[in-house]
Amino acid sequence: MTFFQYSVNTTAKVQFITIDHLLNRAISECGMDGGLCVVFVPHTTAAVTNNENADPDVVHDMIMEINKVIPNADHYQHMEGNSAAHIKSTLVGPSLTLIVNEGRVVLGTWQSVYFCEFDGPRQRKVYIKLFKDQDQKS
Amino acid sequence: MTFFQYSVNTTAKVQFITIDHLLNRAISECGMDGGLCVVFVPHTTAAVTNNENADPDVVHDMIMEINKVIPNADHYQHMEGNSAAHIKSTLVGPSLTLIVNEGRVVLGTWQSVYFCEFDGPRQRKVYIKLFKDQDQKS
Amino acid sequence: MTFFQYSVNTTAKVQFITIDHLLNRAISECGMDGGLCVVFVPHTTAAVTNNENADPDVVHDMIMEINKVIPNADHYQHMEGNSAAHIKSTLVGPSLTLIVNEGRVVLGTWQSVYFCEFDGPRQRKVYIKLFKDQDQKS
Repeated sequence: MTFFQYSVNTTAKVQFITIDHLLNRAISECGMDGGLCVVFVPHTTAAVTNNENADPDVVHDMIMEINKVIPNADHYQHMEGNSAAHIKSTLVGPSLTLIVNEGRVVLGTWQSVYFCEFDGPRQRKVYIKLFKDQDQKS
Repeated sequence: MTFFQYSVNTTAKVQFITIDHLLNRAISECGMDGGLCVVFVPHTTAAVTNNENADPDVVHDMIMEINKVIPNADHYQHMEGNSAAHIKSTLVGPSLTLIVNEGRVVLGTWQSVYFCEFDGPRQRKVYIKLFKDQDQKS
Repeated sequence: MTFFQYSVNTTAKVQFITIDHLLNRAISECGMDGGLCVVFVPHTTAAVTNNENADPDVVHDMIMEINKVIPNADHYQHMEGNSAAHIKSTLVGPSLTLIVNEGRVVLGTWQSVYFCEFDGPRQRKVYIKLFKDQDQKS
C-alpha cells in the first residue's frame, strides 16, 4: 500500500500539531527504504509545513505573527467568517514533498512536519502518498 | 505521455482560475490509475494553489487580503512595476504536488486547484507531470 | 544515485542564492532524461523558491518586502531572536518539486531556483532527490 489516510484532531482555533509519527508509520507499513513522501491536506482552512520542534516558543511566535499579518476580521465578504483561515492555508500551502532515505523521512536536526489548523477545533484528515525508489524490490 | 503543457488565458491583473479539468484531462490521457501529479507554473509573477471552490467570496477575500499584505507600490526598485506580483508568486508558490487515486486527482470536498495570476491579463502556461504507481501496468 | 546533498554558504542575514547549477549537476550525475526533481532544505530558518533571475532588483524588492511584512522584532517569545526567520521559512516553504525533461530541470524563461537564507550568514545544506520516468532505462 502506498496511499494512507490519517485523522488529526485539533483542539484550538489555530494550532500546529507534529505529524512526524504518521509519516514514519506509513513508511514502515509500506516497507519502504528510499523514495518520496507526499503529505497532502484535503482542507481549505488548514495546511502543512516544516519547522522547529525544539523550543515551543517558535510555534507560538509563528502563530502569533501569522494571525497578525492575516487578521481574522478585515472587511471580508465570505459569510462563514473564516476567510483569514483560507488565506493562511494558501500562504502556508496544502502539500509538502519530503525525501525518504534508509526507511525514515529526511528532516533537519530541528525540523518536524506540522499539520497547521487555522479554523479549528475540528477533526481533520492528512493524506500521505509514498513513492519507492525504482531500484528497490517491492 | 507524462508531461503536459496547457495554456491559461487570464483576464485581470490578479485572478484565480480553476484548473481541475486540466489535471483530470492529463490523467485521463495518460491512462493513469494511481500516482502523483505535479503542477508547475513556469512564470515568476503567477503561482498555483488549492482552495475553496464553493462560495466565490472566498477567492474575492483571498485576493483582496493578499493585495493588501503585499501592496502594488512600496518603494520597489524593479522598474517594471510588478515587484508585488513577484513576491506573491513566491509566497503562494510555483509548484503543487497532488495525489492521484482511482484515475482522479485527490481533493477535499471544497478544494479546487487554482492558477493564480498576479500580473495579468496574460497568456500563461501550466505544466503537469504525472508519475504512475510502480505496480501499475504502463 | 538519486539522493544528493550539497552545501551552500550564505554571506548575509537575508539572501537569495541561485542553485540551478546544483540541480543540473545532480541530474547529470544521475544520468536522468525525464522525471521529477525534489529540492529540500533541512533548515527551519531557510527556504527554497523559484523567481526571476534577470533583474537583480526583483530579489532586492522581494527581500525588502518580506522583511517588512514579517519584522525582525515583534514581541516574539523565542529567546534566540530569529522568530521572523522561522516564519519566513514556513511562508516561502522548505520544499520545491520540479519537472525534469530532456536532461534539464524545466524552468520558465526568467525563472531560477533560489536558496533563501533568512538567518545567515551560515553554512547550509540543500538536499536533492531525483525520480526517473519509469520508461527510462536505468
